[in-house]
Amino acid sequence: MMRAVLTVPPLWRSIQRASFCRTAMRLEGGVSMVQGSSRGIGLEFVRQLLEEKEKGQVVATCRDPNGATGLLELKKKHNERLDVLRLDVTDESTIQASANSIAERYGSLNLLINASGVLSLPDILQPETTLRKVEKSSLMFAYEVNAAGPILVIKHMWPLLKVGGSTGSERNFAVVANLSARVGSIGDNGLGGWHSYRASKTALNQLTKTISVEFARRKDPIVCILLHPGTVDTDLSKPFQRNVLESKLFTREFSVQKLLGIIESAKISDNGKFFAWDGQQIPW
Amino acid sequence: MMRAVLTVPPLWRSIQRASFCRTAMRLEGGVSMVQGSSRGIGLEFVRQLLEEKEKGQVVATCRDPNGATGLLELKKKHNERLDVLRLDVTDESTIQASANSIAERYGSLNLLINASGVLSLPDILQPETTLRKVEKSSLMFAYEVNAAGPILVIKHMWPLLKVGGSTGSERNFAVVANLSARVGSIGDNGLGGWHSYRASKTALNQLTKTISVEFARRKDPIVCILLHPGTVDTDLSKPFQRNVLESKLFTREFSVQKLLGIIESAKISDNGKFFAWDGQQIPW
Repeated sequence: MMRAVLTVPPLWRSIQRASFCRTAMRLEGGVSMVQGSSRGIGLEFVRQLLEEKEKGQVVATCRDPNGATGLLELKKKHNERLDVLRLDVTDESTIQASANSIAERYGSLNLLINASGVLSLPDILQPETTLRKVEKSSLMFAYEVNAAGPILVIKHMWPLLKVGGSTGSERNFAVVANLSARVGSIGDNGLGGWHSYRASKTALNQLTKTISVEFARRKDPIVCILLHPGTVDTDLSKPFQRNVLESKLFTREFSVQKLLGIIESAKISDNGKFFAWDGQQIPW
Repeated sequence: MMRAVLTVPPLWRSIQRASFCRTAMRLEGGVSMVQGSSRGIGLEFVRQLLEEKEKGQVVATCRDPNGATGLLELKKKHNERLDVLRLDVTDESTIQASANSIAERYGSLNLLINASGVLSLPDILQPETTLRKVEKSSLMFAYEVNAAGPILVIKHMWPLLKVGGSTGSERNFAVVANLSARVGSIGDNGLGGWHSYRASKTALNQLTKTISVEFARRKDPIVCILLHPGTVDTDLSKPFQRNVLESKLFTREFSVQKLLGIIESAKISDNGKFFAWDGQQIPW
């Protein structure tokens, strides 16, 4: 499934080659990467990119491709259009290796969706109901996965996004969409709790904003946005759905359809902004 | 300097004792703790609490009391009013030990100022000028020191602040003041850069807000605020003062005088808010 990384030329050499044969790289439908796509919202992004659109390549990454049954099923149906790569946001070498693979195969990226995220993990992270339960290890783990992870992915995909933004098939910029969450909003925090998760998503918001400022200053053809998917019926939200009204609990299909709509209609002026599934901006 | 921790009774037993003899604990001027006080703004907070006020006990904490020459000089002059304890925010056992010491000696806290913070450290953390220079280790280190650290201090001092808030000498609540920074504001981020530092302070803002919500819900007599000191002439800002107008570079004396003014005039309704040195609220 994963290419042997040692035989891949250095990323920048691949990029130069890609720029050299720019016309050849203008792939119809472009190249989309969904990071964190073995299940939940990420998997649904991959499915809709493949099945609701007629063209375009999709690179799906996850920690364990061999165990990603949903992706493997899609691979059977869309072998030519789907690559599955191993990427663990907590292991930067796997991010670099994925960038090298994409550089070798496509030389560009038109869309990067960071969909990975952790809210709870037995014995490691539990959404805290009180300060008394806040553990340093939980704070650090949530930050590593939810904040540092997506940012390191953008760092390594940046050269590919620059090429994609200027050779894309549909518009003259690439899009980075980071999955955030309304609970990451400080201004909207009326309930408290969930310290580790909240802080990690707030930090992700700040880091995404910071990166969007640099891309704009450099005139790089990349637009970065933050997305709140709503409360979606996934493994992540399962333990916390009790208090959610049925009408407020979205299917993956519905949420991802809305989010893809926002991504597709994104404008340069949206760079650095934070949108809910319905297109409303969320306060920081 | 530091009490033998093993002989200190468990924190909650000390607190019960403190509540039992509540009248005796109503110390004139109260008990103030300045965490991160060996130099810079923290040291100046300790100095002003001792020298600009006639009464009140001060607990100054730092990583290496024996090397804290500024604190040792103050200790010579104000032996009765100043305790110096070892506390390293990256080592939770030292936070717990400090809480035990304060519980044994005073049984309460009226003010906690978290003044520790890191912006740059040779070979470990440099304020990033571009995404290309963002390292995972820097992101994690800044978060550990600037975000997780102060929150763990509040966690362990919480019982003491509860007692202090209801037995304080000047008003009917205790105050927690966390030193944040304007660059932690997402809404105010027009320049980009400094990824690790920015994200850590933004996360500190969210964590402080989250804690303030819980304190309010529980009706705990504690007000949490976030403070931006301005650009102050300290070791932390030294490498970055070049681009600061002389009129915008504050002395420690000036900044701390302003911040103490905000702390002293804080109201219940300020709980969870983020103030600049001049009292203006900063957007999230």
